[in-house]
Amino acid sequence: MRNAAIAFDAMSASAVALFTDQGVTGYAFDSIGRYGKGALLRERFFPRLLAAPPDSLLDRHGVIDPPACARAAMANEKPGGHGERPGAVGLIEAAAWDLRAKIERLPLWRSLADYYGTRDAGATIRVYASCGHFRDDRLLADEVARARDAGYACVKIKVAGTLEDRERIVALAGGGPLAIDVNGALAPQIAQRWFAAMAEFRLAWIEEPAPPLDYELTRRYAELTPAPLATGENLFSYDDARNLLRYGGLRRERDLLQFDPLLSYGVAEYVRILELCAGWARRQFLPHAGHLFAAHCVAGLGLGMAEAAPEATLPYGGYWDGVRVQDGCVKIPDLPGVGYEAKANLFALLEHR
Amino acid sequence: MRNAAIAFDAMSASAVALFTDQGVTGYAFDSIGRYGKGALLRERFFPRLLAAPPDSLLDRHGVIDPPACARAAMANEKPGGHGERPGAVGLIEAAAWDLRAKIERLPLWRSLADYYGTRDAGATIRVYASCGHFRDDRLLADEVARARDAGYACVKIKVAGTLEDRERIVALAGGGPLAIDVNGALAPQIAQRWFAAMAEFRLAWIEEPAPPLDYELTRRYAELTPAPLATGENLFSYDDARNLLRYGGLRRERDLLQFDPLLSYGVAEYVRILELCAGWARRQFLPHAGHLFAAHCVAGLGLGMAEAAPEATLPYGGYWDGVRVQDGCVKIPDLPGVGYEAKANLFALLEHR
Repeated sequence: MRNAAIAFDAMSASAVALFTDQGVTGYAFDSIGRYGKGALLRERFFPRLLAAPPDSLLDRHGVIDPPACARAAMANEKPGGHGERPGAVGLIEAAAWDLRAKIERLPLWRSLADYYGTRDAGATIRVYASCGHFRDDRLLADEVARARDAGYACVKIKVAGTLEDRERIVALAGGGPLAIDVNGALAPQIAQRWFAAMAEFRLAWIEEPAPPLDYELTRRYAELTPAPLATGENLFSYDDARNLLRYGGLRRERDLLQFDPLLSYGVAEYVRILELCAGWARRQFLPHAGHLFAAHCVAGLGLGMAEAAPEATLPYGGYWDGVRVQDGCVKIPDLPGVGYEAKANLFALLEHR
Repeated sequence: MRNAAIAFDAMSASAVALFTDQGVTGYAFDSIGRYGKGALLRERFFPRLLAAPPDSLLDRHGVIDPPACARAAMANEKPGGHGERPGAVGLIEAAAWDLRAKIERLPLWRSLADYYGTRDAGATIRVYASCGHFRDDRLLADEVARARDAGYACVKIKVAGTLEDRERIVALAGGGPLAIDVNGALAPQIAQRWFAAMAEFRLAWIEEPAPPLDYELTRRYAELTPAPLATGENLFSYDDARNLLRYGGLRRERDLLQFDPLLSYGVAEYVRILELCAGWARRQFLPHAGHLFAAHCVAGLGLGMAEAAPEATLPYGGYWDGVRVQDGCVKIPDLPGVGYEAKANLFALLEHR
């Protein structure tokens, strides 16, 4: 697999399991796009979590408090420099959320909704399929058709940020909502022509036309197209999200924000970002990466849509076993926690250790 | 040791050694303030360096090319997210620089000056002493006096970002140029009164009054004081440096930039930042942290001043054995490479493995 910027074949992933004396286990499994965080967890974040006074990790009902776990893990970390660290801490917080929801005997989305007082929480969420990772252009049409047959309405494909993108898209347009992902690779010299070429398609959104930290270029690109822009998957903190909002020229009636809670210190930091985005609707938040944890965040925080890698035979693809996509939606099964136990090919990896 | 934000007692560090078949060894020793990068190096950056075609790591004369080593290490890394990764890659590049300079039989600063065509390179550099890491306020006056006795002209002390800072400073002012470091801890509510209180001292600079990624607050603080502001030590990339310059409201006739090449992908990225800073003088660059590598960067790139931890009995403190600070300056000894071999208490650590 690759996108316009990198290949994924050597990318690693991390998983976390938290065990209680009462025999409950909370799991977390990595998001995608950043390398594994295992060593950082073992070297500094687990030791701090284990060194924290146990009571400091509990809420006033004596149940594990995931944001408190993330705070304990972050003791004596300098501000700034949000790269690998947010993903490692995010895994700890996510495993604590799975644990908390299991102790409460609730699906995670309901536990999140209770914790944060979400009004529009519900088990059924909109999802979209991510396709076209440059494996083979000839296979792309098949891949997209399979995703649509599987029940996905909106499909996103990778493009290269070149004027040849038009051909890739024209072969697929018309079958349903289509989004494209440039992974920051659009060259400023061709941008005006490229956006003009995209105008013939009514794209659901154009993702990351500019590199993630080039807010000025994002702002200029937003001026070049009426299509919704989506970005944020490579910003891993409240600090960076705030800068995107301050300087990126995004249009709050139209654009989409794709911060990934699992790569960004967890749900507590994500909710701080939501609160920062005054005037933005919750439906404009589309967390990056098709992980089960993100699906619960979409359901429990009332967000717009979850991403999915549609190939369910992969540990990372699809959703819970037996759960079907219908009309672009998925209903999260009524299981305690995230429900990793109900996706056999993924749970086999978690259980392995 | 602590600053206004964190304690350093559990902080780890990494070292890198590159060996050639000809028996030359290039070393790098970590900067300070971020946790060790060993696991990241072992998991992904070393394997990529070792997998690169050997010729791709050499310049046209067949000598190891440090920027090419950093590029090889960065294969298949997504853009954005500059946290731990820049420090790990920086160590590889730095070890390659030590190796290159040794092969050239040059002190590193001269090798850097040749590579980048620096006009104002020279072995003698200005240095300043970093003091007052909140060990004990009563010891601070002694610490500063010792640094001045040792030959340092300019001294920097840590402050808390509270209105009590005035007392800490008044006891020390008058002995010579004094800078203060707030480590991002100044509360916006008291900022106006705090800057007014600082006005009675002619401070050499005020460092990091705002958190590193809050460019808007940096901009507002710059409007509140005529004193030079210094910042940048917690920005680890060209991307982030560019955002500071775009949005931070810094005054190019006055303010100071403290990016740390060793924490920021190495010298090649640092030079890209220098080139970005049109209108800024080289003397306004004061690389963070008192490591020997930074001293060579100051000398070889014609920068303003190097930081020093004045306690030379520590592996991390002082400079090369026998080198004295005179009138606020240090002359880098004429040794090949960085000259780690000539600082016995540090080299003992490097040699150990």
